Amino acid sequence: MQSDVSSDWYNSGAIIPIKVIRATAEMSRYAADLQSHGRRLGLVPTMGYLHKGHLSLMNLLDGQCDVKAASIFVNPIQFGPSEDLSRYPRDEARDLELLEAAGCEVVYSPPPDEVYPPGFQTYVEVEELQRPLCGSFRPGHFRGVATVVLKLFNVTGCSVAAFGQKDFQQAMVIRRMVADLNVPVKLIFGPTIRESDGLAMSSRNVYLSPEERASALTISRSLFASREACSAGDKNARKLAAEIEKALQSDSRIRIEYVDIVDSETLTAIEKIARPARAAIAVYVGKTRLIDNIELL
Amino acid sequence: MQSDVSSDWYNSGAIIPIKVIRATAEMSRYAADLQSHGRRLGLVPTMGYLHKGHLSLMNLLDGQCDVKAASIFVNPIQFGPSEDLSRYPRDEARDLELLEAAGCEVVYSPPPDEVYPPGFQTYVEVEELQRPLCGSFRPGHFRGVATVVLKLFNVTGCSVAAFGQKDFQQAMVIRRMVADLNVPVKLIFGPTIRESDGLAMSSRNVYLSPEERASALTISRSLFASREACSAGDKNARKLAAEIEKALQSDSRIRIEYVDIVDSETLTAIEKIARPARAAIAVYVGKTRLIDNIELL
Repeated sequence: MQSDVSSDWYNSGAIIPIKVIRATAEMSRYAADLQSHGRRLGLVPTMGYLHKGHLSLMNLLDGQCDVKAASIFVNPIQFGPSEDLSRYPRDEARDLELLEAAGCEVVYSPPPDEVYPPGFQTYVEVEELQRPLCGSFRPGHFRGVATVVLKLFNVTGCSVAAFGQKDFQQAMVIRRMVADLNVPVKLIFGPTIRESDGLAMSSRNVYLSPEERASALTISRSLFASREACSAGDKNARKLAAEIEKALQSDSRIRIEYVDIVDSETLTAIEKIARPARAAIAVYVGKTRLIDNIELL
Repeated sequence: MQSDVSSDWYNSGAIIPIKVIRATAEMSRYAADLQSHGRRLGLVPTMGYLHKGHLSLMNLLDGQCDVKAASIFVNPIQFGPSEDLSRYPRDEARDLELLEAAGCEVVYSPPPDEVYPPGFQTYVEVEELQRPLCGSFRPGHFRGVATVVLKLFNVTGCSVAAFGQKDFQQAMVIRRMVADLNVPVKLIFGPTIRESDGLAMSSRNVYLSPEERASALTISRSLFASREACSAGDKNARKLAAEIEKALQSDSRIRIEYVDIVDSETLTAIEKIARPARAAIAVYVGKTRLIDNIELL
């Protein structure tokens, strides 16, 4: 498929035969055209600065659709006023190369005003699942996520979309939204992809200094230890959470936002691990907020 | 098309070759099947107890789609706790006959738990347009409307949908939602259909006693008078509203909820009529709440 000559990076000299669409109306037309030919689009929504986690999701679309697509959009409405919207890492040229290598044919990469034009005022709220965990520290975050994801589904006309489980609460919020609003999109959730030493891949890892990068390993290590303790018979959620907290507190570079052990369906805190449960962590390592989670049962 | 033998009314003995679907999963399958054959569905969403207003919307779908459909669903989440949900008038057998005569092929008429199963928690908010007029007297009403309409669009996979302008704020809320969430549905707004004496058609008119029915005429008469005054050069919104109020107050059976003259786009109150404006009324006639509106400019 020919590249869209109106895209900025094209002028850099690179010739990448991936279609980049920046205008929402053009993306909608492309989607309608695909659908009228009975071709299914699969979408990996991203905020760009891609890593192997994103690319693994692109692979999960294989066999699920006729055209693999991604979106690159740093969604302003899911960031709080004191968060890292303005410094969120970006490298679209590299993203497009990675996506093309992963078999992606189309990328929807709009500027903010193509997504939120003047007068925009409609939001989607997943009222209960948006509240705990990250929701209680990032008010409005999941409202912003649910809203943009529904918009991306509608604009791209995707029939299948893939999300990572590193953002576990996000995955649950989207799953609930799709069910509640009867959105005709099949969801695929991919496992958290980790560096060889265990650190969950995240675009925000680029913020970490070498010392912070070393400290951040405590996050995954404490989760792995918790899963092992649970497998070995320790089903007391409070005790398991306390052990994770103790490990994290032993590192002065880490400041805990939350350590919670929750029911995997409702995301509400549990006392005893008797049904599917998840240990979830949010911490600051220096000024960088990182999250991770693991399935305990 | 063959009737669905699982529908209740079928057993009444009437043989109506209109397809009635009660299960959401079945409606979704039907929609997906239509789409896979490149056939477009047109939808008139209703709460049943149909009148000529609804049927005029069905006619507006002519030439806009391949299959004309309606939904009949008295949406509980758009009613407040003290409103008329439990006594809202219903007559599905008659509705189905009227729809069939109007060329409707499919009716989605689900029970409440097919629309809001246990665990439902996702709502759509059109934050600014949902606030004024009826919104300030019916908190949560337009949230309920926006949510159910989006669900109906998704379940039926409609490519076009028609709504009446009697519910002007509802029409504006839905138009905004569709634009903001990039919903791939074309909207058609039909004019308010009136009885020969001017009363706007409404399923709730059945609540009126003969005396109340006579009093209710003051609503449309005061709106017509306001439009005439505006045409004749009176552009002072406060004065026009005061004249409507005076007419309504002259009838002891009428209690005013609001009389507002608003910008047709933003629904905010205006002082001077210099661009598209609407006079909108909500009153109680006895215990029956009625609304009406008219284009002034």
